[in-house]
Amino acid sequence: MSLNSIFQYFVPKDKKIFFPLFEQASNNVVVMATSLVDAVNSTNAGTREELYKHIDKLENKGDEITHQIYLELGKNFITPFDREDIHALATAIDDVADNIQGAANRMLLYRIDDLNEHIRKLSELILQASLDLEKAIRELKDIRNVRAIADSCIRINSVENQADYVFDRAVADLFLYETDAIRLIKYKEIYAALETATDRCEDAANVMESILVKNA
Amino acid sequence: MSLNSIFQYFVPKDKKIFFPLFEQASNNVVVMATSLVDAVNSTNAGTREELYKHIDKLENKGDEITHQIYLELGKNFITPFDREDIHALATAIDDVADNIQGAANRMLLYRIDDLNEHIRKLSELILQASLDLEKAIRELKDIRNVRAIADSCIRINSVENQADYVFDRAVADLFLYETDAIRLIKYKEIYAALETATDRCEDAANVMESILVKNA
Amino acid sequence: MSLNSIFQYFVPKDKKIFFPLFEQASNNVVVMATSLVDAVNSTNAGTREELYKHIDKLENKGDEITHQIYLELGKNFITPFDREDIHALATAIDDVADNIQGAANRMLLYRIDDLNEHIRKLSELILQASLDLEKAIRELKDIRNVRAIADSCIRINSVENQADYVFDRAVADLFLYETDAIRLIKYKEIYAALETATDRCEDAANVMESILVKNA
Repeated sequence: MSLNSIFQYFVPKDKKIFFPLFEQASNNVVVMATSLVDAVNSTNAGTREELYKHIDKLENKGDEITHQIYLELGKNFITPFDREDIHALATAIDDVADNIQGAANRMLLYRIDDLNEHIRKLSELILQASLDLEKAIRELKDIRNVRAIADSCIRINSVENQADYVFDRAVADLFLYETDAIRLIKYKEIYAALETATDRCEDAANVMESILVKNA
Repeated sequence: MSLNSIFQYFVPKDKKIFFPLFEQASNNVVVMATSLVDAVNSTNAGTREELYKHIDKLENKGDEITHQIYLELGKNFITPFDREDIHALATAIDDVADNIQGAANRMLLYRIDDLNEHIRKLSELILQASLDLEKAIRELKDIRNVRAIADSCIRINSVENQADYVFDRAVADLFLYETDAIRLIKYKEIYAALETATDRCEDAANVMESILVKNA
Repeated sequence: MSLNSIFQYFVPKDKKIFFPLFEQASNNVVVMATSLVDAVNSTNAGTREELYKHIDKLENKGDEITHQIYLELGKNFITPFDREDIHALATAIDDVADNIQGAANRMLLYRIDDLNEHIRKLSELILQASLDLEKAIRELKDIRNVRAIADSCIRINSVENQADYVFDRAVADLFLYETDAIRLIKYKEIYAALETATDRCEDAANVMESILVKNA
């Protein structure tokens, strides 16, 4: 029996603090991913630029939510899950947001006008993974929803595998067909940021799986 | 006296679960490193491709072992060492495997036919560090083998220093002699993945040293 | 009440071990950052080379201090702050040193003679953040200095934001004006190492903020 388990008989686990913050953080990532998909499917450079700047603002908002979770973690001795899991989950969600913003910022900075199929596919996969992340986090309030949470985590893992595959093909294409080294560098960085966003979704899913195992 | 120390009088530390998993994980890395050395020393492109694909399959196997360690860590309140050390050791070994696979995958993807001296030397160093890693982990079952474990860790640190030196020279060579920027990018990434594999061996050695200190 | 709080009534928190080590580590970073600023403001290639090599030696010294902190952490059950915070703070300071050395080493290796305004500005920001880091750590001995520590952390965050801005402009400039892909790669790596040094200062500041919250 863990210390957490011992203490739960004395002090009610304060779910009221952490769950709303996690829901805000994951919902913010969904809005960012939706803006990204909209941007890379838009043919209007002005619209894309607006969306990239919107993503940048949302990332700042996400930073504040993450900071709030860390602060609460410092203040609350009793947490609904292991402190290290709360910290790791908050960090993983923050890293998803960072990488979405990183990709958007590079597309803006490098003045990328040729949004190709690889970029669109990777953005779509990020949105899928973000939606499952949001869903799993909503279910996490009631740990009895094991099946639903586990299913979301499995789907996130599958999306991450697809993103790996798309990334490898995209990079192979670059090295086969792109003769301009500077363009190659730009695209490679954008692909990498997009693919890393799905990696961080998988990190979040792994933390949630570990929470399920501990609280089974 | 740590909580771990208090509990060890009541519950036998379950070494039967974690040690075989760590041995499997480190043995898997040795097989991967051996395949890598074979590949970069082969003059036959078909043989190299087969070995790269074999490394890819072994990396998946390693992922499953790591996942198993994480699952057991979730289930077992009593662990032979601090939970954070078990987690860090499993992660470090997994990262060695990831970087060996990453280097192999890039050599396959970028169709690298010119396996130079730097690549062969770095691969050889990865194999050396992996063998010492496997040795140290086998000794870890009996913490009285302090001397043998510490010696392996010292050798891993020395190999990592050598790899740093080879990497710096390899990159300096690239920037001095390679005029094709795209080739430069390809080789630089391969060198970096190889060098990082030895860094992660050092991370594993650092965790083992910290286990020795705590259990001295 | 945390375990730490319970135990502090029985065993005096041993500040004598950790604080001098943290002060040495942060002071070492200040000396490294000062040498970096001197180097990138020098017009003499020989002077620069000497300073880069000096930075390399200081980084080794920093490694030893970090190793010492980890060793003490293994030995001491009672620590002045949460063990994870001591570990995270030591790692963040070590990472600042690594990135200063990484930037210096690349400038040496790539034979960079054209030290531009972006490099000088980023180096200056690293020195500013290092000085605040050293200040905050000196204050940390007496947790009642909350205001002074918090102020240093806020200034470090502000420096990191400025460094982000300089980095983004520097990279945008590269992609706009640099037509030699290999030169572009060299400068981009140097900018990235410099910017990452300020990120790691921010990591250290975040750990200190979290220590303040827990001990408020």
